[in-house]
Amino acid sequence: MKNNRSRPIRRLALIPLLIGAALPLPALAAPPAAELREAALGDELAWSILEGLTTEIGPRPAGSPREAAARAWAVARLNALGFQNVRIEPFEIPGWERGEERGEIIAPAPQKLALTALGNSGATPATGLEAEVVMFASLAALEAAPPASVAGRIVYIGHAMRATQDGSSYGYIGGVRRAGPNIAAKKGAAAILIRSIGTDSHRMPHTGSTVFDTGVAPIPAAALSNPDADQIERLARRGGQGSNTPLRIRLVLTPRHTGPQQSGNVIAEVPGTDPDAGIIAIGGHLDSWDLGTGAIDNAAGVAITMAAAKRVMDAGRPRRTIRVILFGAEEIGGLGGQAYTRAHRAEPHALVAESDFGADRVWRVQTKLPDAAAPLGDRLAALLAPLGVIRGRGPAGAGADLGPLSRAGVSTVDLNQDGSRYFDLHHTPDDTLDKIDRAQLRQNVAAWTAMLAETAAAAEPLVNQNSLTGTR
Amino acid sequence: MKNNRSRPIRRLALIPLLIGAALPLPALAAPPAAELREAALGDELAWSILEGLTTEIGPRPAGSPREAAARAWAVARLNALGFQNVRIEPFEIPGWERGEERGEIIAPAPQKLALTALGNSGATPATGLEAEVVMFASLAALEAAPPASVAGRIVYIGHAMRATQDGSSYGYIGGVRRAGPNIAAKKGAAAILIRSIGTDSHRMPHTGSTVFDTGVAPIPAAALSNPDADQIERLARRGGQGSNTPLRIRLVLTPRHTGPQQSGNVIAEVPGTDPDAGIIAIGGHLDSWDLGTGAIDNAAGVAITMAAAKRVMDAGRPRRTIRVILFGAEEIGGLGGQAYTRAHRAEPHALVAESDFGADRVWRVQTKLPDAAAPLGDRLAALLAPLGVIRGRGPAGAGADLGPLSRAGVSTVDLNQDGSRYFDLHHTPDDTLDKIDRAQLRQNVAAWTAMLAETAAAAEPLVNQNSLTGTR
Repeated sequence: MKNNRSRPIRRLALIPLLIGAALPLPALAAPPAAELREAALGDELAWSILEGLTTEIGPRPAGSPREAAARAWAVARLNALGFQNVRIEPFEIPGWERGEERGEIIAPAPQKLALTALGNSGATPATGLEAEVVMFASLAALEAAPPASVAGRIVYIGHAMRATQDGSSYGYIGGVRRAGPNIAAKKGAAAILIRSIGTDSHRMPHTGSTVFDTGVAPIPAAALSNPDADQIERLARRGGQGSNTPLRIRLVLTPRHTGPQQSGNVIAEVPGTDPDAGIIAIGGHLDSWDLGTGAIDNAAGVAITMAAAKRVMDAGRPRRTIRVILFGAEEIGGLGGQAYTRAHRAEPHALVAESDFGADRVWRVQTKLPDAAAPLGDRLAALLAPLGVIRGRGPAGAGADLGPLSRAGVSTVDLNQDGSRYFDLHHTPDDTLDKIDRAQLRQNVAAWTAMLAETAAAAEPLVNQNSLTGTR
Repeated sequence: MKNNRSRPIRRLALIPLLIGAALPLPALAAPPAAELREAALGDELAWSILEGLTTEIGPRPAGSPREAAARAWAVARLNALGFQNVRIEPFEIPGWERGEERGEIIAPAPQKLALTALGNSGATPATGLEAEVVMFASLAALEAAPPASVAGRIVYIGHAMRATQDGSSYGYIGGVRRAGPNIAAKKGAAAILIRSIGTDSHRMPHTGSTVFDTGVAPIPAAALSNPDADQIERLARRGGQGSNTPLRIRLVLTPRHTGPQQSGNVIAEVPGTDPDAGIIAIGGHLDSWDLGTGAIDNAAGVAITMAAAKRVMDAGRPRRTIRVILFGAEEIGGLGGQAYTRAHRAEPHALVAESDFGADRVWRVQTKLPDAAAPLGDRLAALLAPLGVIRGRGPAGAGADLGPLSRAGVSTVDLNQDGSRYFDLHHTPDDTLDKIDRAQLRQNVAAWTAMLAETAAAAEPLVNQNSLTGTR
């Protein structure tokens, strides 16, 4: 595959020129964006931002002093790069802090487990909790189980998540993490262990938030690495055989809910020449889970959007204002996006686009544009094709932070990144700088630079939300 | 590469037949070994042993109750398979047990470190140890450092180990782990952190033994995962710049030396028809490090050698006795091999061969044979070529456990396994069953079966050690 990959891309490079020649393009738009795209393939700024944030700040969980340090770091960097109106918009969040986390198989084959508490997990006693394990192959199997089969036990839920380029297996399988602990708690389980929502084969558990219904006391809830889940499933299968003893596990998990904490969004702008043309809001999130340094999730999105906005800024003042938003507290439920939406939804947003799926190459562009702006969608597709980007048929929807504005009717562009290895690393200790492929990072900057330059200059009206009927 | 790989192997399959036709082969030997080789490509026994040992026993550190459980497990399995003279030969070892192990960067960018104590490491106070870090790029740089630059500090040693097919980078770089802590202790260091002796980019520290000279008090000694070592090196490089604070680290390591403990070798035999023809001693080691389940290191060697011996046994009683030795306490200095050598060196060993380099395919055969047995080396090369095995020019030397007998003059065959990814996993929590490639495991069984059948039947004299002058 490696040897064959470069050839089709080179051939593709001719296609947009042919398409472009056949389309009625506005004379001003395409050439500068294409030039900026090519220049951005030599980008070093995104790497510098990514390296700096992951090295100088490191892990930056929502509401923590390190997330605050990341905001200060970002403000200094945005000012130094020449952005305007750089500021922090603070908001409050419910705090949760990881404590100790250990687990071991007590019987039949004693060994330590690689696990990590899920966000919002309850705690075991400080001395730990030991119980027999009851196995479920899926969330549906747990839902169907009588409470008596679960009460007082440690629930295990498995699944068979596999990697998908578009990341869709995360949504399909992720309910195991999001909903499993709440269901187990309501049935009286002592604790819950899930197979990590991840696609790797390392002893790397994947954390992530879970949610308990109001009135349901959080039970201890943790994710096992895939090899540990495999091991438990193998041991459980032997459980019924001859002299084998039941599977018993001991857990020590001491996370705690810490009450209200401060988070915040960092906002910076490239002011446009035409206030009536509306704002293009882009960004990623500044917080990370605490286990790694948040390189793919989401120093990458911070770096890609900052670097692209800087390139468009340096190319001359754009028609539309470009607003870069580095969100806080995304990982615990998109709280930064909600705070931004509350504060800014009345402003004239022309377009939103979010980068929150790592740093691997953009493989697809999808848009949601008013019918009158259909030619913009065509131009974007043509601009991005030389980068190996195909045009998808689905409507764009942004991500956790800018999704609310997109759903409220704002035009949206999705530059979909290749997620084939994203869930090998997502929410694990392994989310570190060395996982970033610098060539793919540059391709992201090139795609974002081209998209931003084109949309910031586009003559088509984008702000009028009443025209948002089509999905192009 | 993948698509091209199968073709040369198929072409190679013709070569041994041509070579074979030109050589004066003993009539009885080659055809059965080649048949057994082909049948062994469908082997399921090695997988079953590997799966059983890693699942039902799991981690089995030297001198621990789990290593004892592994001996009992192996005895039962060997008896069930029909081996004879199955017994345990116990011996004493100096015990060492891992305790708590935590580390964190205190300044300039607070974060937890993925690290693990080296075998024989000293302990920090239970409340931990905090000190400034002094950086060395190599063992030689530490050796050259004046003690005053090191005293009271945490020494860091880096290196640039890369994967090699023959594993030779381990020997070349491994002195950082084996000798570094002793040197740092003698210069008065408070503790030492090394970049893991490993080639992966995961947050997986690699443990392994270190050695302190008699009279040198062990200092706390731990290995950092490669991404953590990268992070520390990046932070240290910033150390001299402007307002950046020095790199300070806090360690909690509470391992302890536990005094004399019992280990043991498990021995089983396939008795030969000709007592004068000598014993072929093969095997791997039963103990593992405690962090993983010891799948590649070395349930694989146990499984491969047991499965191959079983196949030769089932094909009819061999001329030479085949002795399978599952060594104890290899990981802490080849102590099982030393105990075996002490107890059995006076016996007539015809040949030794050891499997202790994972389960990836055998890519090379090397031999050390008396001149009179040169034709056996040629036949082995021809037998193995259809499996994609080339003939190396170096002399065979066995491994940590059978190396002493090899060095004492016993004929030796090395079936070298591909080590390209071995040091991604070696001595980490990631050494688990899922890392085993079943097709490559079968190729190992086929190579070992062919080698065993051929050497057990060979008419050439192998026992007379006075003839050990050549290295073929």
